Amino acid sequence: MKGSKLECVKCGGNFPLDLVNARCQDCHEPLEVRYDLDSIPRDWFKVSRKGCFFERYAPFYSYLKTNPALSLGEGNTSLIRSNRIKGKIGIKELFFKNETQNPTWTFKDRGTAFSLQNAFSLGYRRIGTLSSGNMGASVAAFGSRAGMDTFILLKANVPREKIDALAVYGVKAIQVSGNYGDVYDRTPEMGKRFDIYFSISDEAMRVEGYKSLAFEVYEQMDCKPPDYVAVPVGSGGLCRGILKGFEELHGVGFIHNVPKFIGVQTQGCSPTVDAYERGKDRIERFEDPLTLDHVLENPYPPSGNQVIWKIRSNGGILLKVSNQEILEAELLLAKEGIFAQPASATALAGVVRCAEKGLIPGDARVVTVVTGSGLKYPPVLQAFDLSPISTSLDRLPYTLEQLIT
Amino acid sequence: MKGSKLECVKCGGNFPLDLVNARCQDCHEPLEVRYDLDSIPRDWFKVSRKGCFFERYAPFYSYLKTNPALSLGEGNTSLIRSNRIKGKIGIKELFFKNETQNPTWTFKDRGTAFSLQNAFSLGYRRIGTLSSGNMGASVAAFGSRAGMDTFILLKANVPREKIDALAVYGVKAIQVSGNYGDVYDRTPEMGKRFDIYFSISDEAMRVEGYKSLAFEVYEQMDCKPPDYVAVPVGSGGLCRGILKGFEELHGVGFIHNVPKFIGVQTQGCSPTVDAYERGKDRIERFEDPLTLDHVLENPYPPSGNQVIWKIRSNGGILLKVSNQEILEAELLLAKEGIFAQPASATALAGVVRCAEKGLIPGDARVVTVVTGSGLKYPPVLQAFDLSPISTSLDRLPYTLEQLIT
Repeated sequence: MKGSKLECVKCGGNFPLDLVNARCQDCHEPLEVRYDLDSIPRDWFKVSRKGCFFERYAPFYSYLKTNPALSLGEGNTSLIRSNRIKGKIGIKELFFKNETQNPTWTFKDRGTAFSLQNAFSLGYRRIGTLSSGNMGASVAAFGSRAGMDTFILLKANVPREKIDALAVYGVKAIQVSGNYGDVYDRTPEMGKRFDIYFSISDEAMRVEGYKSLAFEVYEQMDCKPPDYVAVPVGSGGLCRGILKGFEELHGVGFIHNVPKFIGVQTQGCSPTVDAYERGKDRIERFEDPLTLDHVLENPYPPSGNQVIWKIRSNGGILLKVSNQEILEAELLLAKEGIFAQPASATALAGVVRCAEKGLIPGDARVVTVVTGSGLKYPPVLQAFDLSPISTSLDRLPYTLEQLIT
Repeated sequence: MKGSKLECVKCGGNFPLDLVNARCQDCHEPLEVRYDLDSIPRDWFKVSRKGCFFERYAPFYSYLKTNPALSLGEGNTSLIRSNRIKGKIGIKELFFKNETQNPTWTFKDRGTAFSLQNAFSLGYRRIGTLSSGNMGASVAAFGSRAGMDTFILLKANVPREKIDALAVYGVKAIQVSGNYGDVYDRTPEMGKRFDIYFSISDEAMRVEGYKSLAFEVYEQMDCKPPDYVAVPVGSGGLCRGILKGFEELHGVGFIHNVPKFIGVQTQGCSPTVDAYERGKDRIERFEDPLTLDHVLENPYPPSGNQVIWKIRSNGGILLKVSNQEILEAELLLAKEGIFAQPASATALAGVVRCAEKGLIPGDARVVTVVTGSGLKYPPVLQAFDLSPISTSLDRLPYTLEQLIT
């Protein structure tokens, strides 16, 4: 589409839309897609539409020719209203956007689906990523479905069961020893050399995929956007994407105010929050990260700087929570019927803390993004005492009698 | 609703709708819901509707007063068109109904959601089930969300990680030693005695929940139903439910023909197929079942007889497949981007066999139900050689060069 481009959010520099994994030459920041939003009529959302997200929200993806046959039914996840815990937390209206209902059971699928569309439209027949697990499984599933030659680069310490669960899609799983940051930095070069489209965490089209989450929330809340959106912050791509979605809704005039964002990290790896709290503009590498969930363990997140700038100008909050708070939030979420991976519970833990400290008003409408399934990270269960009760058929009546509350 | 009732599909005997876990006094068969379908207008499906399935398909659930606040966003799963393997199999149009996108990542959630509605409307405040894993997780999630006192009875040999993944919802997990069939038989009595609504596999309202899958497929295929629907047959409840959904669409006049059903079991536990192949009307207990996936291991399935009668009168096929065929189908499914539990691959293995033997025509439109996530049963991965490639950052270019196809 004419006028579409990539833009540096820092200096405003322009770049062609078909650059892959490019950063601003001056600022070294990841770029964002810009395109014409003016043609979208104000009553566009009054009709509900079918298909995958880039069909349903086509005007927001008008700059790319897409092929729905490569979709795996990503997105279109439930928005669940809190029944049981909102009172405990002291938030009047609390919602969970359940991203565990994606095809590989994490939010990554939205980004992968759209990245793959871009790769395909640019003529790539090879796709890849660099992952500690969830993104690898997502790119493996979509790459395989599209019949693309698929390369998943993994840290040397990724456990075998995580590798098996992505290798099963019939892709090339490659464990790379050495510094993860160095591998990340060299990935674009590898992509150019071998014609592999690397869909990595700060890639512009991946972020475009994530923005669909904002459109869905807007529709699911009957076009009344929430006051706050809480997200875990790892690489920062998800936070950037959802925020961009709401900013575009604001840009067209669908909403009057962009929701404030609550970005949450864990104390075990908080480079973005630390820089934010010190009033800095740029993150520093976090030494020796140690968290409950690998997906939170990004010591030098590529979108870290942008998350700081954006949350500051958004009027939102960046904060970190302890492992204990995350585990408590994990059980709160399970009470609502959602077994999430610890990273997801991190966002809820942030909401709990904000409510306790009076950082958000009690009558706020809050959406918490539940990023991935608890089945992705079963070791967390060992943190709880979940021993079953043992009995025999004969003793079952007595056992039940004792347990009835 | 006036005129609604439970009916014995064998003798036609009538029973009140509010009986829980009742069977026909004479035939000892599980009962089915009957209600007035005549009031539904023929153009009803022309409008697409929002909400959970019993809101979207309200006329098909008109006999029960429901409360959407207890929903977890079950159903509304993707129907994925086969890209890569339909040619290999020799089926022109093959679709996957991806039930792994449910809130606890299996089809069970549809049944649990509606069972729970019934329990709630009847005034129960305690719910339970008997499970080897998936159903337990599903009832745990929904029971917990509804704030009900929730009891999950488990076989003594269910592995600890499966128990943890349901106990996390904050419910009472009870391992019962002794014969599973005996526990099953005594469950209704326990329910009556302790006012626990046991949502077990052949319960009428659970089957009602499963029928929503047929309505979704019908809508997703633009109101042109498939020629065949393939399902794994364990207890038989899913098969009964989906078939009932299509029968109701036929009863109202939405469709001219009910799709033929392909019910698939594994050689390691095939009581329903064995009775069917011998021309019998009633199943016999399968001795010493041994399968790739616990969920297929029901030696005396409660809906077994009904599945035989229904598939016979439907003109469908009941067949069994080998472990080898299941594992091959597992990898085929993964090539389409779906990592499923082996039970799901069983249905696809049945389709492959039917196509090979010419039991279904090559131009047939076939829907295969993918019942649950591969993350539910990771041990199956050990059956494959999924070793990753190891390299270092320095050697990565050479490794990639060798791997490029």
